[in-house]
Amino acid sequence: MTDSDTAIGPTRPDEVEAILEVTAQAGVFDEKEVYTVRELLDGYYDDPGKSGYNFLSYREEGRVLGYACWGPRDLSGHGYDFYWLCTAIEARGKGVGRALMQHVEAEVLARNGIWIVIETSDTDPYAPARRLYERCGYQKSMLLPDFYREGDGLVTYTKRLR
Amino acid sequence: MTDSDTAIGPTRPDEVEAILEVTAQAGVFDEKEVYTVRELLDGYYDDPGKSGYNFLSYREEGRVLGYACWGPRDLSGHGYDFYWLCTAIEARGKGVGRALMQHVEAEVLARNGIWIVIETSDTDPYAPARRLYERCGYQKSMLLPDFYREGDGLVTYTKRLR
Repeated sequence: MTDSDTAIGPTRPDEVEAILEVTAQAGVFDEKEVYTVRELLDGYYDDPGKSGYNFLSYREEGRVLGYACWGPRDLSGHGYDFYWLCTAIEARGKGVGRALMQHVEAEVLARNGIWIVIETSDTDPYAPARRLYERCGYQKSMLLPDFYREGDGLVTYTKRLR
Repeated sequence: MTDSDTAIGPTRPDEVEAILEVTAQAGVFDEKEVYTVRELLDGYYDDPGKSGYNFLSYREEGRVLGYACWGPRDLSGHGYDFYWLCTAIEARGKGVGRALMQHVEAEVLARNGIWIVIETSDTDPYAPARRLYERCGYQKSMLLPDFYREGDGLVTYTKRLR
């Protein structure tokens, strides 16, 4: 019913394990990062408004092929963070990531938001993600080399929606 | 004993009200922001390691003249956020802010940190704070107009410590 047949909708409690599997299989997130996604999902189900983290699932024939996590920046009226975007390996190159990004942008606009901020890594494994952000109109706004660890810097992408 | 006679040291539980008073009197933080400082202080006393927020007080003759709040960025080995810096109105222009910043930088270096990130507002009331950051060697790395609200943008300052 409701969201179960649509391509993109709020992540359901029965999708938690699928979300974590997609995350772990992506190959770019370590154990601690996968655990962080689980914690954020827990907060989301306790109270998405209070947790500040919203999850969207991309589904096809009942399978979760990707998800996005986003939320309002604390103490900010118009700024939103795009925290996580992940597509199942077998579903890559089919527009899942782009569809999720567009859905998040629509949600942010519906809340009168102006900016979306994405923080990611400058390393090679994240190159496909960075290319997706650039194709979706995000600007590389800041680069802090070695931020995460030596040789692994922070890149901040931003997009002004209106 | 211990920290009570030194100029700068970890904020003590009996200094919470003084910290909140300095914050409220600064004139740039609204009620919600003052409340946020209280929440962060609560987390700090519960467990600074877990909360991720560290507070330092600047004291003179037993009075709190300013404070700094900083902490490690989640999932980052080398990045630290400088969350709050506040000097009592009557103590401004005496180097309290600069001394607190230098103390935070020393703490970050002691933890093998590389970057400090400061997010602030681009509005006029924050001009003295921005000048202080610039005098202390921070670079204006990103500007997102209207991020907080119309006419109130986000400015990100960064400094590479080593």
